[in-house]
Amino acid sequence: MAIDLRVMGQRAVAAGQKLGLMSTEARNAVLEGIARRLEGEALALAEANEADLAQARADGLAPALLDRLALTPKRLAGMAAGCRDVAALPDPLGEEFDVRRLPNGMRLARRRVPLGVLGVIYESRPNVTIDISALCIKTGNGAILRGGKESLRSNQALARLIHDACREVGAPVDAVQLIESTDRALVPELLAMDDVIDLVVPRGGPGLQALVKEHATMPVVYGGIGVCHLYVDRTADLERSLPVIHNAKTQAPSVCNALDTVLVHREVAEVFLPMMARNLIESGVQVLADQASWALLERAGLAEHELVGRAGADDFGREFLALVVSVKVVDGLDEALAHIAQYGTGHSDGILTNDYAQATRFLNEVNSAAVYVNASTRFTDGGQFGLGAEVAISTQKLHARGPMGLRELTTYKWVVEGDYTVRA
Amino acid sequence: MAIDLRVMGQRAVAAGQKLGLMSTEARNAVLEGIARRLEGEALALAEANEADLAQARADGLAPALLDRLALTPKRLAGMAAGCRDVAALPDPLGEEFDVRRLPNGMRLARRRVPLGVLGVIYESRPNVTIDISALCIKTGNGAILRGGKESLRSNQALARLIHDACREVGAPVDAVQLIESTDRALVPELLAMDDVIDLVVPRGGPGLQALVKEHATMPVVYGGIGVCHLYVDRTADLERSLPVIHNAKTQAPSVCNALDTVLVHREVAEVFLPMMARNLIESGVQVLADQASWALLERAGLAEHELVGRAGADDFGREFLALVVSVKVVDGLDEALAHIAQYGTGHSDGILTNDYAQATRFLNEVNSAAVYVNASTRFTDGGQFGLGAEVAISTQKLHARGPMGLRELTTYKWVVEGDYTVRA
Repeated sequence: MAIDLRVMGQRAVAAGQKLGLMSTEARNAVLEGIARRLEGEALALAEANEADLAQARADGLAPALLDRLALTPKRLAGMAAGCRDVAALPDPLGEEFDVRRLPNGMRLARRRVPLGVLGVIYESRPNVTIDISALCIKTGNGAILRGGKESLRSNQALARLIHDACREVGAPVDAVQLIESTDRALVPELLAMDDVIDLVVPRGGPGLQALVKEHATMPVVYGGIGVCHLYVDRTADLERSLPVIHNAKTQAPSVCNALDTVLVHREVAEVFLPMMARNLIESGVQVLADQASWALLERAGLAEHELVGRAGADDFGREFLALVVSVKVVDGLDEALAHIAQYGTGHSDGILTNDYAQATRFLNEVNSAAVYVNASTRFTDGGQFGLGAEVAISTQKLHARGPMGLRELTTYKWVVEGDYTVRA
Repeated sequence: MAIDLRVMGQRAVAAGQKLGLMSTEARNAVLEGIARRLEGEALALAEANEADLAQARADGLAPALLDRLALTPKRLAGMAAGCRDVAALPDPLGEEFDVRRLPNGMRLARRRVPLGVLGVIYESRPNVTIDISALCIKTGNGAILRGGKESLRSNQALARLIHDACREVGAPVDAVQLIESTDRALVPELLAMDDVIDLVVPRGGPGLQALVKEHATMPVVYGGIGVCHLYVDRTADLERSLPVIHNAKTQAPSVCNALDTVLVHREVAEVFLPMMARNLIESGVQVLADQASWALLERAGLAEHELVGRAGADDFGREFLALVVSVKVVDGLDEALAHIAQYGTGHSDGILTNDYAQATRFLNEVNSAAVYVNASTRFTDGGQFGLGAEVAISTQKLHARGPMGLRELTTYKWVVEGDYTVRA
């Protein structure tokens, strides 16, 4: 069957408009219907997912990717819980802010409304299909989803389930549409549809982002690539800094807010670096040291350790997504700030310090989506920040920065009510 | 002298960073310095402007464009007053919102910070150079300005004046940089600099917007094109509707929030259309009527009037920017909504009605930057909405919608302060 993206787009616009005008209760009922089906139809979902997994195994997919693809009962339960969490969040639609009575008597307000239609392009994890759909339904947006080819059958089963939940409540089934084809030519075609798609969110690596940058004619929120830094100031509590660095690196090494580079003030490097290296090595973290760090680790008898290596030029500014960290000795805050400005991706960066002025300067001068004092970079997350779920973590500056929750999937319109009022 | 846009961009980044860290007082002092110079250096400015005007006259520029180009003493005084108005507005930088203490004790806040560097491309009016510079300086953003070739000498004189004001206060002169060349090839080059320019604002017609759409690799806020509608419901107070339509059409016909099309409910069309046509004709407005309207105007003896004509197919969805209005009879709200959805540009649209349910539906269902009940579309304006000045009127949905004031030239960062806090 040929895919007509243009027809899908027009249907998404109409469905989004209808959805956005439905009551909070109705939209939440769709989410509850999805949650119930994720629990009740686990067997049918497992069958579709098993077909994807069998194909992926036959294609020789890496075990880590196979794992991401699997819809285990635990994951399905988590997805159902996620839908209910989103349903429980306050409805952003209709919220009015900056409400004023103007001198001429007119009432002026900014009112939150849906963005319209989102295009989301993502890779193998099928749970993203549910996450994004739940957020879009809650915010009254239409969604056109393009998942990875490895998860096509799983995504088709999930989309059917979402459509059933829409139908039950009388919500438009076209609100969530899956592109049921793995034809690569469809992506540039989708990215040219700026008349129907209001926002594109690419969830994937640099290759996908470059493709989107080349072809997209509509606004895009890029995100998800984080080269994250922690700077250990000379006044940092060194003992207490260890678990923060350990947490930032090891708690979930494959995600974008995981730590990539530690910058250490020269005055404390001799004491701190061996402590830190031992602490990380114990958890299997590979430590890649710049020249000055290497000399200090060598003096501490750590240079021979198999997990200690020399950092190459491209180990700074590199997102490891694994149990690897690069380490550099710096002369102080200025050098740390310059390093982060040069090598960071504007995602999450922090300072460990007990010096108020250094902390203040770091927060003011580091231009990242999230800046930290004395905390793990792992907190940059919609759930942790109290937004509920998230569509993506934006590393750009317009519209949404950091975790994008429900509010970030809305826009506003100016609502002006007069009494046959004219401009003088 | 060859223009190195890349060097300009890097300087703008550095200057913006410095400016954004300066105190509110210092940034306001730059604005006061600009205002003082606009008043004190009127003669030198007039000389530069006269050179532009002489060239423009020699090139046979239309009188309306010559008028836009002129820096009269009154305009200079207005520009100075504008700078002082911007200085008097609250500083958006550093404002924190969504401030929370998380369950783990961390303090979380969104803090307003500058966007970074703006690229603004605009046409002949040199006062835009001051407007944009004032807004960018206030918000700690660097700006790279590309004005029209007709106003190059005027813009150069204004840029020198801005630089003097920066120098006096110790602000970086590179914060505002004018591209002092009329080479057209520089525009695509500028639009490719997504590593240094955070936002491009094209202020101009459809040609400029298409050029930007083709070449821009960074976020863009499009705006300034408004096909604006007023729908006269059958319950509208017809007498009181006349001055609203008259105001929306005639108060400033050449701007984007001016009225383009009146939709009239069939039940009141026979009474209202002749009233309205007479009222508009008296002010020299040409009325282009659809078939049904034409029949009613003919019956009222107005069809022979030289200012009454038949609307062609392209007179709906057309931004007249002149004393012309198109008129259509509709069967009711549904047809009006469909017409606005098809022909509008999402700028400013309103309903004239005394029916609460119709007003509510119009506000909910029309998806424009500004939606009105019983008021002139002419209010869509930063000054009128209480934002002070405006950079542009956005007709897109991301980041800023409608008038873009100071806040819309900022972004936020998440500021997280812990006590060596780790994620569980």
